[in-house]
Amino acid sequence: MAPHKLCMIPGPIEFHEDVLAAMGTPATSHVDPNFIPVFGESIEMVRKVVLSEKAQPFIVSGSGTLGWDMMVNLIEAGDEVLVINTGYFGDHFAECLEVYGAKITHLRAPVGGRPSNDEIKQAVAGKKYKMVTVTHVDTSTGVLSDIKSVAEIVKANSPETLVVVDGVCSVGSEEIRFDEWNLDVVITGSQKGLGVPPGLSIVIASPHAIEVFKSRKTPVPSYYSNWNKWIPIMNAYESRKPAYFATPAVQLIYALHSSLKRITSQPMENVFDKHRQVASNFRKTVQDLGFKLLAHTEEGAANGMTAIWLPEGITIPQVVPSLATKGVQIAGGLHKDCAPKYIRIGHMGISVMEDERGHIQKVIESFKQTFTELGYIKA
Amino acid sequence: MAPHKLCMIPGPIEFHEDVLAAMGTPATSHVDPNFIPVFGESIEMVRKVVLSEKAQPFIVSGSGTLGWDMMVNLIEAGDEVLVINTGYFGDHFAECLEVYGAKITHLRAPVGGRPSNDEIKQAVAGKKYKMVTVTHVDTSTGVLSDIKSVAEIVKANSPETLVVVDGVCSVGSEEIRFDEWNLDVVITGSQKGLGVPPGLSIVIASPHAIEVFKSRKTPVPSYYSNWNKWIPIMNAYESRKPAYFATPAVQLIYALHSSLKRITSQPMENVFDKHRQVASNFRKTVQDLGFKLLAHTEEGAANGMTAIWLPEGITIPQVVPSLATKGVQIAGGLHKDCAPKYIRIGHMGISVMEDERGHIQKVIESFKQTFTELGYIKA
Repeated sequence: MAPHKLCMIPGPIEFHEDVLAAMGTPATSHVDPNFIPVFGESIEMVRKVVLSEKAQPFIVSGSGTLGWDMMVNLIEAGDEVLVINTGYFGDHFAECLEVYGAKITHLRAPVGGRPSNDEIKQAVAGKKYKMVTVTHVDTSTGVLSDIKSVAEIVKANSPETLVVVDGVCSVGSEEIRFDEWNLDVVITGSQKGLGVPPGLSIVIASPHAIEVFKSRKTPVPSYYSNWNKWIPIMNAYESRKPAYFATPAVQLIYALHSSLKRITSQPMENVFDKHRQVASNFRKTVQDLGFKLLAHTEEGAANGMTAIWLPEGITIPQVVPSLATKGVQIAGGLHKDCAPKYIRIGHMGISVMEDERGHIQKVIESFKQTFTELGYIKA
Repeated sequence: MAPHKLCMIPGPIEFHEDVLAAMGTPATSHVDPNFIPVFGESIEMVRKVVLSEKAQPFIVSGSGTLGWDMMVNLIEAGDEVLVINTGYFGDHFAECLEVYGAKITHLRAPVGGRPSNDEIKQAVAGKKYKMVTVTHVDTSTGVLSDIKSVAEIVKANSPETLVVVDGVCSVGSEEIRFDEWNLDVVITGSQKGLGVPPGLSIVIASPHAIEVFKSRKTPVPSYYSNWNKWIPIMNAYESRKPAYFATPAVQLIYALHSSLKRITSQPMENVFDKHRQVASNFRKTVQDLGFKLLAHTEEGAANGMTAIWLPEGITIPQVVPSLATKGVQIAGGLHKDCAPKYIRIGHMGISVMEDERGHIQKVIESFKQTFTELGYIKA
């Protein structure tokens, strides 16, 4: 790989050499007999990553944001939606759903927190919701939601209600048991835990979600996001047949195939555990250095990224460029209430799974060095 | 480049080594100071390819089909649209516009033909249209539309009417003079004349189109395709500033930048002329061998691809796999009325511009060999 700054933002993450090589696959027809099984197997492996036997994956050219748009298939004008909101991405997912006629109720928590199970119970008891959305990891705050409990609470109250997980910053780095936990939709992108350059929107839908989609009363008011267009394509490629609605991003799908093969070559439990362990050590290291995290609790902190408050008087322009000169790219804040006051560091994918790369070590060393130079850490 | 079948379908086309190398760019943040000018310059170069000074380009993660979807920004329920229809892509563009409430009138031609200027004059005289769409090259038939005349006729009749060109199979291989010809929208994808792997939707809008968009009476009924979201992003990157709505496909944009630099390093006239010359020679060669083209006339035949009728009694499964074993991938038919009866061959991008690669020669030799083996050409 060419020398470059380590990309340790909460996505895009560092990519494996094999993934980058797959990106350079020479021109290949989207209906080439060599490509068809690559696409088909990728669909199957997406299911494995979220531990599902029966869900319907969609792999479509687009960004993670397109996954929100695909909820147009499940929403009809006037539908009530509860948004369990832990930051920027909850706000904007809601904005997207409103475009398609959803009536939104936000259940918010203070920055760094997440609504408690009791608050969620109370919220779903008060109204019949068509859909409850939850951001698994809000990339703006590094808060991890307890999606297992959310689904339990929602389904206990109303089994028909759709549980929709924004997993853009969690698929591949957080435990997700799609079937066992009774989830209906998980939305993600290629560039985070899945370890593939940005450009693929990946959505996974339960049989119940597909049923709700099929029994909707009004036509889907979208062309590009319409599952009626995409289901036949996914079914065809999974049956190792070509089909056409839009030209798939052939090279990105080769790259996805390469990364998913690596990820699914071991039990997903290993992947979840390793991310948990590295994240826990990382949090301890920065806390031992005197830093405070945005996430209020250990169990409410993401395992693929960490958001860290800057010490009083230290600003992002003093920190992010300093780490960049040391060869490490991190990110500034994103939450509208406090963006200038914190930084975000990603720890996902090969940077976590392959210790021998020394990525996490390099981040910690550069981090220490920067804050030593700034006089915050005593050398 | 790894040895592979030459991809001589009408897109994806063969990619330059530098473009494939750019696809393998290591992980780079979408707000990295190195990436920002790459995106900004790409926006500027898109304008150059269509010879515009003032149009607004959009470069968005998605397939070419997403470009149709973006017409949701210009269409309001009940708007009248004339579709100048030369094949499969006219039918489906119309289907997309109908989802957004357009009332469609088709002006069709027999397979291989295109509506005459008189027919177009008559059609636009009969009704006031909000939009007239024309497929510059219908990939299903290889028919080239005369978009200059279409725009002249439409604007002479009604200057406010939007002229929307589906240029998926024409941008980079056909002459397009966006400003001079008074076009309002050109839609394309990355994987054809622009010579970049699939995964980018590229749309170019005139100031008039942006004005129509801004003065619409109803909100845009789409989230992902909404220009209100994308205009600030394009403006920011073009001003060499980062901005966020959805993570851009960083590696594909590096690849686009590489390809656009090569294309725009010479006057676009060279690119147009070379495609015309190679296409004309190619048509003559196959016609001299006794084949008939779908396109009824020379001036109505595309310069980036050719659709060729199979001789009576010869079928696609006899031809396409035979060329594949000779190292050349071509495509079967696509038009619903006659798909099994013809083949399609692409001649765009580096295969045309760089004679020394010998791609066209290899296609012709393999083509001759296949039809000699089938007994159609006497050795």
